[in-house]
Amino acid sequence: MPVKDSRTAALAGAPLLLLRRLGVHTHQEPVVYILEDSPICRSEGFEAQSRVRIDSGGRSVIATLNVVHGDLLADGEAGLSEAAWRALDPAAGALGRVTHAMPPASFSHVRGKIHGKRLQQAAMDAVISEIVAGRYTDVQLASFVTTCANSALDDDEITSLTRAMIAVGDRMTWARTPIVDKHSVGGLPGNRTTPLVVAIVAACGLTMPKTSSRAITSPSGTADTMETMAPVDLDLAAMRHVVDSEGGCVVWGGAAHLSPADDVLIRVERALELDSAGQLIASILSKKAAAGSTHVVIDMPIGETAKVRSHDTATKLSRSLIAVGKRVGLEVRVSLGDGRVPIGRGIGPALEARDVLSVFHREVGAPDDLRRRALELAGDILEMAGVAAAGEGQARAAAVLSSGAAWRKFEAICRAQGGMRTPPVATHHRVIEATSAGAVSRMDNRGLSRVAKLAGAPAAAAAGLELHVGLGEVVEAGQPLFSIHAETGGELAYALAYMESIGALIDVETRR
Amino acid sequence: MPVKDSRTAALAGAPLLLLRRLGVHTHQEPVVYILEDSPICRSEGFEAQSRVRIDSGGRSVIATLNVVHGDLLADGEAGLSEAAWRALDPAAGALGRVTHAMPPASFSHVRGKIHGKRLQQAAMDAVISEIVAGRYTDVQLASFVTTCANSALDDDEITSLTRAMIAVGDRMTWARTPIVDKHSVGGLPGNRTTPLVVAIVAACGLTMPKTSSRAITSPSGTADTMETMAPVDLDLAAMRHVVDSEGGCVVWGGAAHLSPADDVLIRVERALELDSAGQLIASILSKKAAAGSTHVVIDMPIGETAKVRSHDTATKLSRSLIAVGKRVGLEVRVSLGDGRVPIGRGIGPALEARDVLSVFHREVGAPDDLRRRALELAGDILEMAGVAAAGEGQARAAAVLSSGAAWRKFEAICRAQGGMRTPPVATHHRVIEATSAGAVSRMDNRGLSRVAKLAGAPAAAAAGLELHVGLGEVVEAGQPLFSIHAETGGELAYALAYMESIGALIDVETRR
Repeated sequence: MPVKDSRTAALAGAPLLLLRRLGVHTHQEPVVYILEDSPICRSEGFEAQSRVRIDSGGRSVIATLNVVHGDLLADGEAGLSEAAWRALDPAAGALGRVTHAMPPASFSHVRGKIHGKRLQQAAMDAVISEIVAGRYTDVQLASFVTTCANSALDDDEITSLTRAMIAVGDRMTWARTPIVDKHSVGGLPGNRTTPLVVAIVAACGLTMPKTSSRAITSPSGTADTMETMAPVDLDLAAMRHVVDSEGGCVVWGGAAHLSPADDVLIRVERALELDSAGQLIASILSKKAAAGSTHVVIDMPIGETAKVRSHDTATKLSRSLIAVGKRVGLEVRVSLGDGRVPIGRGIGPALEARDVLSVFHREVGAPDDLRRRALELAGDILEMAGVAAAGEGQARAAAVLSSGAAWRKFEAICRAQGGMRTPPVATHHRVIEATSAGAVSRMDNRGLSRVAKLAGAPAAAAAGLELHVGLGEVVEAGQPLFSIHAETGGELAYALAYMESIGALIDVETRR
Repeated sequence: MPVKDSRTAALAGAPLLLLRRLGVHTHQEPVVYILEDSPICRSEGFEAQSRVRIDSGGRSVIATLNVVHGDLLADGEAGLSEAAWRALDPAAGALGRVTHAMPPASFSHVRGKIHGKRLQQAAMDAVISEIVAGRYTDVQLASFVTTCANSALDDDEITSLTRAMIAVGDRMTWARTPIVDKHSVGGLPGNRTTPLVVAIVAACGLTMPKTSSRAITSPSGTADTMETMAPVDLDLAAMRHVVDSEGGCVVWGGAAHLSPADDVLIRVERALELDSAGQLIASILSKKAAAGSTHVVIDMPIGETAKVRSHDTATKLSRSLIAVGKRVGLEVRVSLGDGRVPIGRGIGPALEARDVLSVFHREVGAPDDLRRRALELAGDILEMAGVAAAGEGQARAAAVLSSGAAWRKFEAICRAQGGMRTPPVATHHRVIEATSAGAVSRMDNRGLSRVAKLAGAPAAAAAGLELHVGLGEVVEAGQPLFSIHAETGGELAYALAYMESIGALIDVETRR
């Protein structure tokens, strides 16, 4: 079959268009706007929602085409959304060519998985690199995320996914060893032990280059909380500088580009409010391996409304974490915790930071559950790394916290990351009171998280919930149970409207 | 918990914005564009990609928010995409209010399904009605479609899905009985028997109100092919008028609004090139039940590259079709066919119509495989409906075709649907020749379909492939194997570029 034409020919034949920045934020998805009656739409046979490729000045980007009629654009112009503009970064007056984009070849592997085939390493590599190259549409990403969640990837597939995610990102190497780390599987509001653990462990002379996520389905990720106390958008060089001088850091993994695939996948998981065991493990371990870690403690809270709901699930997840960790060169220890109630008083970036600071400052009324959990995890790391003998890690951690050494280390880390900040305070509040007297018998973690999110967390850093009572506590009618904090009246109203539509978030049982 | 605020309060508090038609085609998804520094973005805490609700003149639409900076919009304006504009249909100068949209409550059922729960009738009803109300984002739709494809819905779930899809659409009732119908499960290029079957069956006095789909993953659906011969976008009243006067019709199911849920789901399935047994069955049967059918023949071609690849799959699918059909009140018969090679010579809307017309006209060289398959299916229907005795249906159908009665009936149906049309002819062609002499040993149906699609089919009605040889045929080197038809040079080049990247689509085996 003698076929001469190719992409090069198609590219050469496409007319040049003046690139114009339209100033439209379409989130991550690049969009190009082209006039319906322009020669390119007619000659190329484009229609709305085609995937196209834009080439300009040696760069290219895959974008979704929105066809335009009317006076939004002039003849010979191609409008670019902010994401498309950033990817091409064109000079003033730059021209570009728009051609058909081939569909991502690796999506056939996703279809295979949907129909029951297993994903081999080569297939997983192809999928992840096309995802990172921006070749997947949101619809295709959602399909990949869903099928991986649905069919429970086995350990071989999780290992392949982890390796593929490590391969597409940068990777750090360190001259010293061990390199320690911790991670929480999440789902427990307010569980913000990381700043405490990093400071304690670094104060003991260990190296802990901690990268954290922003929130996936929760009102705050560790990176969101840390950002209210210090900058977290550090690149690899800046992160290395902090760790070299202070022994530890708490930065956002996405800014460090340690797992660029994870940043894309997490956005879709968040839109679906979907957590998948396989993607969870690959997300955690790819970032730990990329950061050059050797020893990792996993904090796994178990509770009815936490991410891990039963000891059975916890056991299965722990086994996979340890097995996959070993295959990618990581020693993993899992620490199970109580996930029945939130840890600390605050839910939301700044409110959780206030809890962390009160533990550092050993304030009267500082949340003791947060303090104890941080000491357990820090103790585990100190023992794993051989800094403390078995059974003595926690006491060593407690001593470093109460001496003030941990706080001085945390201050130094914040300064090294770009300067310490004071967490912001919300302008709108609403106190929710007990309607009857009794004892607090249950808290709905998911419902509380949802209210905090509707109030604006994590995008609005000061927003969230502040708990005024603990489990088992006896309250009077009219006594405050919790407060909603919001940065705008609209968000406060939205959170209250949601609360109206569901039952009680904190149950108070009448004493007989 | 004393909570006073609600959606009504939020709506009353939102400032009025001047609705402006921006002329941007974003396909089905409504988009609203609002200035970044407008009071509403600040007071409501919106960010890019929020879901919002726009209320104007008693109507409302759920849309995706794109935040804009620069001079695209003036202060106090809300720009609307074409889909949003159509949904609200505002008068000139109309004002609207934009508020947060609650996430679709039924998506929790989809998450449950992803995590292994079965979807009950009430859950399925909730999901389908929120989908039809436009409350699902594309990402959520993709997740629903994927999880249903992935986990193979059982017959109970397929029945629930079918009933839910019937419930959200219009439903036709007929004074007479039986109401007959046919459907092909597809995947076989060129399998365009429907216009022939409807004409034969209606010429025998039966009632066949046929609604057809547009292409899902193929280069042409029956509605696409029929549209090159007559209008197919008829509403229920117009369709009833055609059937009352002629006994049959071939219209697009989407225009008839018999299964509005299917129209939404099919768009996402098409984007993913994904076919799911459960959704296939629900799609077929919901439309048949909604059209008021009582007896349905299912054409199921089996072949390596057809939609149904093995007799095992065909048996399983047939059983589900018959079982679910019974539960929604339909008598179903499945007719298995040869799906190894395309039927007819043309692949693409107009090229397939030319095949159909040549069979009607009993032209020399009319594709005999298409003629025979149409007679088998029409014969089955005539027997099922009691018009012909068992074993005599096919002969009766052949007589009606050769007498010219079927053609006269087809002409009358086309006139009744709005007037007969002549299928368009493409302006760009490329002949693909055999590189060596031998016998045609295999055709890659999926590859051929993909080339037809890249050449522009089905959106470009004249585009597609024309086969010049059949399976087993002996050819010389340089003899034409097939031709590519396109309406634009860009699309022709795109199809050729794809062909360059893969192997032979038609294998010619050298004789020894």
